[in-house]
This record gives sequence, structure tokens and C-alpha cells, in this order.
Amino acid sequence: MATEPSALASRVQTYVEALQSAVCAALESADGAGRFSADRWEHVGGGGGLTRVVQEGAVFEKAGVNTSAVSGLIPAPMAERMHVPRQHYFATGISLVLHPRSPMIPTVHANLRYFEQEDGAAWFGGGADLTPYYPFDQDIAHFHRLLKEACDKHALDRYPRFKKWCDEYFVLKHRREGRGVGGIFFDSLRGDGEFDFIRSVGDRLLDAYLPIVSRRAAEPWGESERGWQLVRRGRYVEFNLLYDRGTLFGLESDGRTESILMSLPPFVRWAYDVRPQPGSREARLIDILEHPREWV
Amino acid sequence: MATEPSALASRVQTYVEALQSAVCAALESADGAGRFSADRWEHVGGGGGLTRVVQEGAVFEKAGVNTSAVSGLIPAPMAERMHVPRQHYFATGISLVLHPRSPMIPTVHANLRYFEQEDGAAWFGGGADLTPYYPFDQDIAHFHRLLKEACDKHALDRYPRFKKWCDEYFVLKHRREGRGVGGIFFDSLRGDGEFDFIRSVGDRLLDAYLPIVSRRAAEPWGESERGWQLVRRGRYVEFNLLYDRGTLFGLESDGRTESILMSLPPFVRWAYDVRPQPGSREARLIDILEHPREWV
Repeated sequence: MATEPSALASRVQTYVEALQSAVCAALESADGAGRFSADRWEHVGGGGGLTRVVQEGAVFEKAGVNTSAVSGLIPAPMAERMHVPRQHYFATGISLVLHPRSPMIPTVHANLRYFEQEDGAAWFGGGADLTPYYPFDQDIAHFHRLLKEACDKHALDRYPRFKKWCDEYFVLKHRREGRGVGGIFFDSLRGDGEFDFIRSVGDRLLDAYLPIVSRRAAEPWGESERGWQLVRRGRYVEFNLLYDRGTLFGLESDGRTESILMSLPPFVRWAYDVRPQPGSREARLIDILEHPREWV
Repeated sequence: MATEPSALASRVQTYVEALQSAVCAALESADGAGRFSADRWEHVGGGGGLTRVVQEGAVFEKAGVNTSAVSGLIPAPMAERMHVPRQHYFATGISLVLHPRSPMIPTVHANLRYFEQEDGAAWFGGGADLTPYYPFDQDIAHFHRLLKEACDKHALDRYPRFKKWCDEYFVLKHRREGRGVGGIFFDSLRGDGEFDFIRSVGDRLLDAYLPIVSRRAAEPWGESERGWQLVRRGRYVEFNLLYDRGTLFGLESDGRTESILMSLPPFVRWAYDVRPQPGSREARLIDILEHPREWV
């Protein structure tokens, strides 16, 4: 950065790094077997990050938790899209994507980020969303309820707005279905006070997810459910590579490929024209993904 | 189309449909077990296509051969990129992507297409390229030699130009490596005479590929080679969803998703930060993908 990151930027960086440690420790404990690797990396423009991954754990087939604090020049295509002159930026944040082995446990994704520009503009963004393979209403409602509580502490209009934003953002247009059952998504939150909101969300992330993991850990599944999970994971890949702004911005801005694509599921299948039996649990999932609903 | 497709358009459509039949028959014979399904589909704008797929064959784990002859209004973002007013178009072509089960047999992709606009502009495009998991120089040279012969019949500068174009097109920028070992790629070939060139390429496609299949069918492989193949197939997905213009245009123009994405490999793995042992066969592949070479 031509200028130093602001005091707020440093506080956010400290928070996300501490959150990463706490989250990884809790996930190791929940997994029981998997241990997070730790790769420190540097960004071409300046700064760097820490990528932590579990592969082939007992509960988590792949779990990635990444933090970064990077600076650089805004990539030309992005500056164009944002209608700002090319200038230096500083960005820090945390991303996590957890792919459980059991098709009965949903995949979860969360991201909290802070971005500031040389010209002084600064904002927070992020969210958390759930992608089940077999939907259990109780689990989905729990996840949304916890996120709503985090939102409600700050303003009662937040959850409905950010829930809707999430439903609209995580859409596979070419399939006319949502990636999952949503959660919250937000961007362009300006003002130092929003750091409190970011912490409210970050501090509740695992409370929103880990009880679901415990509840579904013993749920039986076999080859058929595994097959469905692999096909649905393909949809996850399609969203991330075709539409996800964070992924595309990361790759475009010469980010660290392995840290950006750690979000992709471990094993995936693309079979031709898979259609679930009418009335099946798989068909019910598709119906939910095609018609976002209220969970709280 | 506001106006009827031209006489040339109909001849191209007839050719690609006949080629599809011939190719599917030859592939069934080469596979020995797999049989192509046949799905006729309609395009929202007009026309439609025929998608033929083998899944879980003896040789081909997934093989897709698709023809289409569709019309519609050029999608707004594409018209903008092409610097033309939005207008009706007619497009016909054939695409094939073959994913063998054995990691010793390369994946092959080919596409031949014709596009014409309401304002009279018309052109051919296409190409053929090879993606090995374990590179055998003899196979790669054979593939390139056959394509060179098809090119040389028309003009001696074609193969060098189209080979270079292919090397430049099939690049995963975020990984700084080619998708495969190339072949030929071309676009914007104008004039009725180019239909002869298209047929020269189409008529030699299987001659360029099937001898490789026979030669490598008995090559031994095990879990380790399979694992490498699955990881490399992930790169194939990354290219197709991030960069492939045909895929992105198809999805953008409300094409038939299952026919467009039939190109994606059947089983895929994303593991974190896979790096082959120095001096290994896998490392040699990466070196070839990072440094395109001359094969003929």
C-alpha cells in the first residue's frame, strides 16, 4: 500500500487471525482425528496469509480455513466494474469451507472481510451459508436462527435483508437453483461500528454449525447417498468457478490459487442429466433449492 | 432466425449430424461395451440438438458427442464483446469430449462450429486438443501429425498458426499451465471454402485419436495413477468453467446446461496443494504443460 493500513485494518486483521486459531482448534476437537496443516504464504503485491487445511479427517473430508492480509493495486477489470480509478488497496479477512464426509452433514461456508482503498473508502463484507445434501429442517432452522440472533443484536432489519441477499447471491443461474439453503450475505457495510457486527457473526459461526454436525454424525448413509453428495458437490464447484466474486477476484488479482480453491470439494462427480425420483428426499432438496423459504 | 439459415448453414448442419453418427458408431466399437444414449432437445430461441453420451463404458468412463443447430438473439453481453448490434444468429456444430477410464489414455476434445448473423456475417471455428495424464511423446506426436496433415491440405501456414493459437487459448492463467498438450484451435474463418477445411479436420478426428487408445489400452496403472488422473481432471473443470468461451457463451445464452456441461469429467478430486515428486512422470507432465513444445 502506498499508505499504511489504517488502525481499524490492523484490528480486523488481529481479530480474524485469532478467530482462525479458535475455529481450527474447535474443528480439530469436533473431528477427533484430523489435524490442520499450516501454510504461510506471501502475496505478490504485499502481505500474505495463512492457509490451514484438514484432509481426510474423521468427520471432515476436507476443511479449509484461510486468513489473509494483502495489499496491491486493484486489478484493472475490477476497478472498471467498481467505477473507481486504479489505486492501492488493503484487504484482510477469513474464509472457511467445511466439506464433511457424511452426506447427512451439510457443507458450510463463511467469509468475513474488510477492504480499504487508498482514497479512504473502506467497507466490510461477508456472510455464512449452508449447503445440505439431505435437508433436515431442524438443522437449517437452527443455522438461520443463530445468524438471526447475531444480526438482531445490531438492527432488526439486518437478518431479513441479508438473508434475502444471500438467497439472491448464491444462485446457479444456468440451473435455476440456489447453491444451498442460504444464511446471510452482506457487502459494502461502511463505518467503524460495523466491526462489532462482523465480530458478532464471527463469534457465533461454530455455534450455528457444530450442533448440526453432532446431531447428524450417527445418521446412516450408504453408496446411494454418497453418490448424490458427489453430484451435488459438482454444483458447488460450478457456483464457485462460474459466479463466486471472491474466487474470481482472487484469481484475477493473482491471489494464491491453492488458498482460493481450497473451497472446492475433495471428491466430485459429474454424471449426465441426473434427476431424482419424484417424492424422494433428493427431489425435496431440489424443490427447496428452487424455492427459497423462510426458516425462522 | 428472422431470416432462414443460408444454404451453407444447412450443408454444415447435415455434415455435423452425419459425423456425429459415424463418430458414435466408431466409439462404441472401440469401447466394446458402452452404448450411446440419445437425447433430443429444443433451444428456447429456436432449433435444438442431439446429445449422445456413454457413461461407465469399458474404455470410456464418460464420452459425450453433441450436435446442435440453434437460432436466437445474440445475448447482450456477447454482442457488446463482439462490438455488433444485438441481432439474430444461427449456429450449428459438433462437440466431443472423451474421458477414458485409464489414466494412460488421454482425454480428447474437439469442436467444429459455424455461426451466421442476420447481417450476413458468417464464420467457422473449432479445433481439437489432447489432455494426457501420463504423456507418451509418440502419442502426442501422432495426434499433432494427423492434424497437421488435415491443415496442410489447405495451406501450409495453417498448422503452425492454429497450433500456436491452441497453445495460447487452452491456458489456465491462475496456474500458469496449459490444459493439455494442444492440437489446433481456430476461429473467424470466413468464406464458403472453409467448409472443406472443417470437413478435413472432422474426417480425421478419430484417426488422430483412436490409435492412441488402442496403443495404451493395456498399459498398467493403479491407485496412484488414478489419483493423479482425478486431480488433473480438476484442472480440466477449472479451465472449462473459468475460461472456455464455448461453455460460457452456452450458459449465458440459455443453452441446454446438461449438453454444455457433458464436457466435465465423471469423477474428479481437488486435493490441497498437490506437487509431484521431482523427476517423476507426473513432474514431467507439468513441465510439458508449462512449456508448450513442437511435436511434429
